[in-house]
Amino acid sequence: MAKSYFRENVDEMSPYVPGEQPADGERVVKLNTNENPYPASPRVAEAVNEVMVDARLYPDPVATGLRAAAAEAWGFEPAQIIAGNGSDELLAMLIRAVVPPGEKVAYPVPTYSLYRTLVKGHGAESVTVQWPDDYTLPMKELASSGARLVFVARPNAPTGTVVALDALAALARGLDGVVCVDEAYADFAEDNAFGLVREFGNVIVLRTLSKSFSLAGARVGLGFAQEPLIDGLNKIKDSYNLSRMALAAGEAAVRDLEWMKANVAKVRRTRTRLVGELGRLGVSCTASHANFVFASIGPKARNVYEALKARGILVRYFDEDRVRHGLRITVGTDEEVDELLKALAEILPA
Amino acid sequence: MAKSYFRENVDEMSPYVPGEQPADGERVVKLNTNENPYPASPRVAEAVNEVMVDARLYPDPVATGLRAAAAEAWGFEPAQIIAGNGSDELLAMLIRAVVPPGEKVAYPVPTYSLYRTLVKGHGAESVTVQWPDDYTLPMKELASSGARLVFVARPNAPTGTVVALDALAALARGLDGVVCVDEAYADFAEDNAFGLVREFGNVIVLRTLSKSFSLAGARVGLGFAQEPLIDGLNKIKDSYNLSRMALAAGEAAVRDLEWMKANVAKVRRTRTRLVGELGRLGVSCTASHANFVFASIGPKARNVYEALKARGILVRYFDEDRVRHGLRITVGTDEEVDELLKALAEILPA
Repeated sequence: MAKSYFRENVDEMSPYVPGEQPADGERVVKLNTNENPYPASPRVAEAVNEVMVDARLYPDPVATGLRAAAAEAWGFEPAQIIAGNGSDELLAMLIRAVVPPGEKVAYPVPTYSLYRTLVKGHGAESVTVQWPDDYTLPMKELASSGARLVFVARPNAPTGTVVALDALAALARGLDGVVCVDEAYADFAEDNAFGLVREFGNVIVLRTLSKSFSLAGARVGLGFAQEPLIDGLNKIKDSYNLSRMALAAGEAAVRDLEWMKANVAKVRRTRTRLVGELGRLGVSCTASHANFVFASIGPKARNVYEALKARGILVRYFDEDRVRHGLRITVGTDEEVDELLKALAEILPA
Repeated sequence: MAKSYFRENVDEMSPYVPGEQPADGERVVKLNTNENPYPASPRVAEAVNEVMVDARLYPDPVATGLRAAAAEAWGFEPAQIIAGNGSDELLAMLIRAVVPPGEKVAYPVPTYSLYRTLVKGHGAESVTVQWPDDYTLPMKELASSGARLVFVARPNAPTGTVVALDALAALARGLDGVVCVDEAYADFAEDNAFGLVREFGNVIVLRTLSKSFSLAGARVGLGFAQEPLIDGLNKIKDSYNLSRMALAAGEAAVRDLEWMKANVAKVRRTRTRLVGELGRLGVSCTASHANFVFASIGPKARNVYEALKARGILVRYFDEDRVRHGLRITVGTDEEVDELLKALAEILPA
């Protein structure tokens, strides 16, 4: 075997596997990566088009316009906000800034599988705590884990469940470390953890424009925390981490909140219908507060995933404990959901 | 003092300071961050505009089109190429993937000051080796430094100098670690280190589209190395590190090499003229192979920088050993260079 020039933890690791992306032009019903079925605000493309004339110049390293828009939209100071190349970059920055290699990061599982990849890539240790059956926060286990950083996805993926905000507050109070509330899907839920940021210096809330704002292709994430936490993250931020195009897209999207909210309302209506129709097919779902549902299929979940794929319908199957009996299905348009339901009605009796 | 939740190395560090960016609409002659004075290929804006219709969908995580274009342009296999959110991200990824915290990264100084920030942010140790007066590679000191990773900027910033390729080959042969040749400015030079990638499994060459391709605002970098090195980097790559817009911009730019070459030819002609005119003002420059010159001003370099700034002309002053006697001046348009020379003619006798 050839010599490796890499760190041991890198040699040992496998890369994160994103959901499959169809080739350009391939016709599929794509319900596997939680993209928004509706387009972004038309102001986004206009704003991007406008900045192309200055593409030869470096972007604003501190995302002034985007952060100002976010501050206004959600009632923060710009100094309490950091912008990332997707919230994935902010997750990675948090680990790097807070956790010395060899120390611990804790999170309830199953959850967003990127956490494990990022922790491993940093050379830190993942402490995974099983969700209880009711998906309430395993607060004591997390608080006593010895972790420097705890991730809680709220809503959680792939289950769509939310933990109580007072349980998160108790965790923030009890943990000698940082609590990161990953709110990628929060716009589809009934409430959010922004209040905890105001109360606790060790809480950071992450948002992404990939889901509710229909901008997965633009890679824009936002972190909200009290200033000392934001200041530390800024020290290790790549100096120009968002392009001119991403900055323009992000600012235009955040300044058109009504567009986002209208799309979210449509997705929530379709989600309710999808859960109801799945019930009629004998498939129950965890109570979803996100733009996907987690459908309990049973021991043949993988076969159902394959059968859907053969019909050109992509959903997500996770071959891991607690969730290998189910499928995570993105809430698409009503037409896409109808196609899915029709296919499931044919496949499921088998 | 409030409790810090950060790692010690983060608490100790200062963030990287990018060159100052004028506010939108502010009229300055901007010769301080080595941007290309000429616009990117018009195909870039067209390509970006086209992908906005799919902005709701995740981008291609492995940059297939961009890597194919780069493979064709420079004679590599796509599997020998990785795309980054600027070459800055690739520099950071290399450190993370190759260097265990506490171990060493070596580079000759003065050079690109981001290296120090990235090494510190990772919790690794910088071993800095002074360039000799003739700016040849301090090969033995680097090879015996015990570093897992060596950075050599070629052309170097802020001096514009290049090291001999056979000295780099000797370093690659002698070092038990990775040699990263940072070729951000290579298109403005006479040759490049691509040949070393074909010869050595421990060499990676980084390119950026920020300078020669006039796309600093788009954040597109490329790494070229043999497959095992690229494979390891891919493991720790953020899963969607380039937006749809950046991918489209990058591919369109690389597929229009002639546009880039024409701009580079113009910049090189202006560079020759700038060096000549500076000489007539009694200012000598290191032999520049980049899109900037390093002008030896003398002990009053900082005053000259300030006087230029007061006239709306931004250049770069570095308050550090070996270079505090000089100014790094980006090669702008002929008109910008004329403005600079006129201002210097007035300032310098003082």
